[in-house]
Amino acid sequence: MLDKIQMQMLTEVADLHGVPEGAYNIRVNGEKAGRNTTANIDIATKTDGKSGIDIRIKPGTKNESVHIPVVLSESGIKETVYNDFYIGEDSDVVIVAGCGIHNCGNQDSQHDGVHRFFVGKNAKIRYVEKHYGEGDGSGKRILNPVTEVYQEAGSYVDMEMVQIKGVDNTHRITRAELAEGATMIVHERLMTHGEQVATSVYEVALNGEGSSTDVISRSVAKDTSEQVFEAAIVGNSVCSGHAECDAIIMDKAHVVAVPKLDARNVDAALIHEAAIGKIAGDQLIKLMSLGLTEAEAEEQIIGGFLR
Amino acid sequence: MLDKIQMQMLTEVADLHGVPEGAYNIRVNGEKAGRNTTANIDIATKTDGKSGIDIRIKPGTKNESVHIPVVLSESGIKETVYNDFYIGEDSDVVIVAGCGIHNCGNQDSQHDGVHRFFVGKNAKIRYVEKHYGEGDGSGKRILNPVTEVYQEAGSYVDMEMVQIKGVDNTHRITRAELAEGATMIVHERLMTHGEQVATSVYEVALNGEGSSTDVISRSVAKDTSEQVFEAAIVGNSVCSGHAECDAIIMDKAHVVAVPKLDARNVDAALIHEAAIGKIAGDQLIKLMSLGLTEAEAEEQIIGGFLR
Repeated sequence: MLDKIQMQMLTEVADLHGVPEGAYNIRVNGEKAGRNTTANIDIATKTDGKSGIDIRIKPGTKNESVHIPVVLSESGIKETVYNDFYIGEDSDVVIVAGCGIHNCGNQDSQHDGVHRFFVGKNAKIRYVEKHYGEGDGSGKRILNPVTEVYQEAGSYVDMEMVQIKGVDNTHRITRAELAEGATMIVHERLMTHGEQVATSVYEVALNGEGSSTDVISRSVAKDTSEQVFEAAIVGNSVCSGHAECDAIIMDKAHVVAVPKLDARNVDAALIHEAAIGKIAGDQLIKLMSLGLTEAEAEEQIIGGFLR
Repeated sequence: MLDKIQMQMLTEVADLHGVPEGAYNIRVNGEKAGRNTTANIDIATKTDGKSGIDIRIKPGTKNESVHIPVVLSESGIKETVYNDFYIGEDSDVVIVAGCGIHNCGNQDSQHDGVHRFFVGKNAKIRYVEKHYGEGDGSGKRILNPVTEVYQEAGSYVDMEMVQIKGVDNTHRITRAELAEGATMIVHERLMTHGEQVATSVYEVALNGEGSSTDVISRSVAKDTSEQVFEAAIVGNSVCSGHAECDAIIMDKAHVVAVPKLDARNVDAALIHEAAIGKIAGDQLIKLMSLGLTEAEAEEQIIGGFLR
């Protein structure tokens, strides 16, 4: 049974208000707290000595979902978890991951998730990953996700990566290799505040003919927080890639954007755009003339920007 | 006296068809081949043991020019030259540098120019640097320019950096530091062919309030040539920065673009755009329907792109 804090963390990271439908694996404080498999989706604890699970989705599985939330509510836990997703050909599924850390103690809590996705031919997945931290302890809340995506021909991956609040330190690495006709869409939304530090690295290799990617990052950096965004798109074939990074900088924050376009084939078409700036003054004034305080107006604008 | 080949190189790198008007220093095969100073512009050989010259432009000097072309026509010369420009307040001058290498031998010829510009308050300079190589020897033509620019308040620097042909290996580094109200505009045009390798690095630090920069690179990579373009804009103040990199990739060439936006101040507004791709097919077809061969149509398009 989950306690109230743990349930709240589940809501934050997986929009869950109870046990989800379909397949799921809930991990709390380093232990399995619940699991369900279906006829098409199997979840098995790894037997090779590593901590983690193997998720196997049968070819042709449609309109099913897998939830694998992780909650840390004890201070001082440090874990590395390896989760592998084998997604069968022609399937169409939603995968919801995410980690919530509630740290009221003075020891750091850290969850490093290494996720690998083997996406079969013409399979389609939507992957949602939310990271959230809270708790007033002096211990840090640390999340270092590594995501590796191997896309077979014609597959389609849509990733939503969200870290809105409360994570003190994160170093995210996402690597993808796309075969012919494969598509990868990434929407990253990131907010840092206080003294938080966030580094986010994307490396997408467009190996197959007709492969394409669109990596879009929107971030807000408040207070004295620091953000580094690196996105490399490598075009090895007839392919198209687009990366976009828009950041709002506030207070004494520091934002660095380093995209990289690497065209190794005459038929690679790669585009990048980036913009860093503060909230436009006239937007603030307009909202304030409608009766909002400056702080409320800022919240409104940031909310819209990160939606 | 310059020989015919040397005169031709001068024409390529400095648009000179004879001895220029105004101040000049012509360097041929590691030796001074001519110098002229004016009432306002002094050129002196360095006395600190380093090879190179000091160019001093008096405050308020307007509508004058300095030409400092370098020609290497012997095979096997390798030199590093330090040239310092002291540009007085309120002056408005044109500086034309550039290096041409004619290498018919089997030894490499290399010119590494280290140029420093100390640009006084409200001074304005236009700097043109052309690099050119030719000759059918097996020796390489190598140019590694380092350009450092220190801009005082209100100064304006417009740089045109051109390397169109014949340079086998180049590693360009341009660094600038801008005080309040200073502006730096860079237009780089680069073409590589054969097995040439070109790396171009820009680092512009916007330190002063109201400083701004616009770094625009256009390049064409043919055959199996390789290009790396890195442009970092650091915003330390109320400032605005824009970098743009457009590259045409042809044949088996390889192009990498790595811009970097580094916003360290809430009032820094930084923007970057990059695009790498091949010549648009419909543009080619249109020109070919007007009677051009495919090669002629390509030349036409490249010429327009790099103009």
